[in-house]
Amino acid sequence: MKRNLFLSLFLVNTIAVLAQNKDQQFFKEIYNSTLTNSKCYSWLDHLSNDVGARLSGSTGAQKAVEYTKKQMETLGFDKVYLQEVMVPHWVRGEKETAYIQDNKTKIKVPICALGGSIATPQNDLAAQVIEVHSFNELKSLGADKIKGKIVFYNRPMNNAEIDAFDAYSGAVDQRYAGAQEASNLGAVGTIVRSMNLKLDDYPHAGGQSYGDISKDKYIPTAAISTNGAELLSKTLKTNPNLKFYFKQSCQTLPDALSYNVVGEIKGTEHPENIMVVGGHLDSWDLADGSHDDGAGVVQSMEVMNVFKNLNYKPKNTLRVVLFMNEENGLRGGNKYEELAKANNEKHIFALESDEGGFTPRGFSLECDDANFDKISKWKPLFEPYLIHSFTKGHSGSDIGPLTSPEIVKVGLKPDSQRYFDYHHAANDKFEAINKRELELGAATMTALIYMIDQNDID
Amino acid sequence: MKRNLFLSLFLVNTIAVLAQNKDQQFFKEIYNSTLTNSKCYSWLDHLSNDVGARLSGSTGAQKAVEYTKKQMETLGFDKVYLQEVMVPHWVRGEKETAYIQDNKTKIKVPICALGGSIATPQNDLAAQVIEVHSFNELKSLGADKIKGKIVFYNRPMNNAEIDAFDAYSGAVDQRYAGAQEASNLGAVGTIVRSMNLKLDDYPHAGGQSYGDISKDKYIPTAAISTNGAELLSKTLKTNPNLKFYFKQSCQTLPDALSYNVVGEIKGTEHPENIMVVGGHLDSWDLADGSHDDGAGVVQSMEVMNVFKNLNYKPKNTLRVVLFMNEENGLRGGNKYEELAKANNEKHIFALESDEGGFTPRGFSLECDDANFDKISKWKPLFEPYLIHSFTKGHSGSDIGPLTSPEIVKVGLKPDSQRYFDYHHAANDKFEAINKRELELGAATMTALIYMIDQNDID
Repeated sequence: MKRNLFLSLFLVNTIAVLAQNKDQQFFKEIYNSTLTNSKCYSWLDHLSNDVGARLSGSTGAQKAVEYTKKQMETLGFDKVYLQEVMVPHWVRGEKETAYIQDNKTKIKVPICALGGSIATPQNDLAAQVIEVHSFNELKSLGADKIKGKIVFYNRPMNNAEIDAFDAYSGAVDQRYAGAQEASNLGAVGTIVRSMNLKLDDYPHAGGQSYGDISKDKYIPTAAISTNGAELLSKTLKTNPNLKFYFKQSCQTLPDALSYNVVGEIKGTEHPENIMVVGGHLDSWDLADGSHDDGAGVVQSMEVMNVFKNLNYKPKNTLRVVLFMNEENGLRGGNKYEELAKANNEKHIFALESDEGGFTPRGFSLECDDANFDKISKWKPLFEPYLIHSFTKGHSGSDIGPLTSPEIVKVGLKPDSQRYFDYHHAANDKFEAINKRELELGAATMTALIYMIDQNDID
Repeated sequence: MKRNLFLSLFLVNTIAVLAQNKDQQFFKEIYNSTLTNSKCYSWLDHLSNDVGARLSGSTGAQKAVEYTKKQMETLGFDKVYLQEVMVPHWVRGEKETAYIQDNKTKIKVPICALGGSIATPQNDLAAQVIEVHSFNELKSLGADKIKGKIVFYNRPMNNAEIDAFDAYSGAVDQRYAGAQEASNLGAVGTIVRSMNLKLDDYPHAGGQSYGDISKDKYIPTAAISTNGAELLSKTLKTNPNLKFYFKQSCQTLPDALSYNVVGEIKGTEHPENIMVVGGHLDSWDLADGSHDDGAGVVQSMEVMNVFKNLNYKPKNTLRVVLFMNEENGLRGGNKYEELAKANNEKHIFALESDEGGFTPRGFSLECDDANFDKISKWKPLFEPYLIHSFTKGHSGSDIGPLTSPEIVKVGLKPDSQRYFDYHHAANDKFEAINKRELELGAATMTALIYMIDQNDID
């Protein structure tokens, strides 16, 4: 009996070691294949340099749908299809202009309208400026001091944060809800310091919401470059009565028809279990959105390309989903979940890459403790590829709506330091992408999906 | 008795926890101070944009000595001084030219002379080309096939490596010893594919050595851009008889007087124990060397600035050493060790930053197992700052000569993926530096030195 026990233990250990060796070997093949034989960088070259900016409802967005669908059709999926989704259609119009009128001196500053903003009335707006650093400060000033003014939100992202996304989270309320809060106190417009840790001349676009205020109370809102914000703040100190002028002609058109792009390969053993990997196809309109989120799109496609090159057939169904409209509506993510629910689909796993094409550092996991512990145990497989960080936290916006009870949702965590140098700004271009960093991200995503596919997730 | 034992254990544990809390708190202060109140980025701005390239023996190198000495004098050291060192003085001369003569077509390609190379004879050289990928291949071809030819070394850095420095190590023999090996078989010149993982138009400089071949056998050697190498290789396939032409007018002048710059603050408890932190002040001549190694210089200076800002007085003596001539001679590192030995100094620790100003990932440690284990136990303090990697390996070239028996030598390990995009090339400029990444490196170095200073290293 004892001998049998020893034999059993020996066999269990042997099998575990063999499985680990097999995984180690496959990890090596995944990284090797991605670093020497990938397509993601040339796909991104096309998506960025030939297709270009892809704001929801734009021609660019439509071209991106067509291009990625065509490329996905070469990757050996069982089917590649589109999911119809109606998306907001906001257009910037003419390039914005803005200046500080400091007594007789006019100082031009770079601004850009925030997504969803209305135009300036009769195409221009000039008013005194009041600088604030928080909604509390705004409210304590009260309607008396705010009425008829332009509110200037100038709380910088906190440089002391280690993860740049924490610095973003701590400042983005000003951009998102600044206009509605200021309008409630009678402001005529808002200017928001760009979400950027650097001092430079790029205004950074981004979504904003008027919330539930009535339409007649909408006020125009724009982002100003960080250098512009510093200058405005400094000038206000010497001349609190300066006037700020800005002009923007953006507008919201009727919703437009657009698409999520989906590639699907049926699982060989558990076709009913669905694993999703994706990024979002839309971008802001000021640049080609190479980091946000061209990178995530081509990395997700690369997962399938690597499996194809290594002749790996997933046991569970794999879907590569390129979501539309993450930036200003999340309609694609919501539509995907709506259809998944209607079709009674069982999603076991979703992975999103939407934090830029930088060197991957790890994963942010949205799951229960048991799955977190299970996945964290795979660390030793990842560490040779310099993937060290397994934390609980937000996964991704587009996979946010997915609610299968057993689902594990994961966000790829690339190095965050440079992300907000480019985020939503005119310099988020292909030149800002390093091929190897992009590829390492794709390989890391592939490796995680392989592990999920090989191991039951409860 | 038992009660006393419990009490003792309780006290020991309490002291350990308090020490850990104190360290955690001080780490927070270090990172906070560096990310919000550092000088390294503006120092580097000056060193890169005002001083510029700093090849040993050049005016730039002399200006860098003067500038950094002056800045160091503001940081609260007990003394700042120069160590005289004679350095090689190689000059590039006129910008090199090169072209492929493919029948009647002349195709210009970008090259740069390698450091220490001689000029082309009578200022030009034209010969048939033989492409090889290793010294073995070269030798197997033999003198018959090599004599009178230009040897073209074209083995790329291996993209499949995860750490870009491993890819560099696997290819750099071609650059370093290519000329001597080819000359031994009668070649008239060598052209070496640039040490670059990217395909682009930058030739990458770097040191080379003629070894012990006699002076009359020296042949001119240059690096060609990776795109140029691809083109030359492709053209050779269709026309093996093409001629390659290159012209360079570099020369080696008599050795020049230069300096290491040293700032020293005496330890409050163990002044006899010396801790060194440094980088190298010289750079190649094609750009300002912001990553190699302007970053390491200003990060090392920042360590003292952070200690000053936090009013931290080290228990052991701390020296910030800016070494001269790492790139083409290592004379500064050797001189430092020579003087340390002559003065019977006891070095307990040395830390070098010479792998670029990118996001820090960890440390490479040259020490015995006991110290490696001890330092690795500090990981939990570093992980909140995304410092995960503690490995045994090479520390740094300049601290390489240090041989105190009890010394622990460490190299900062930043993310390596982009390093060879810039290394020794004309694009290693200030624009390639991200302020936060540079600062995080400096903070990480400061934190390690603090831990070394607080804990006895045997």
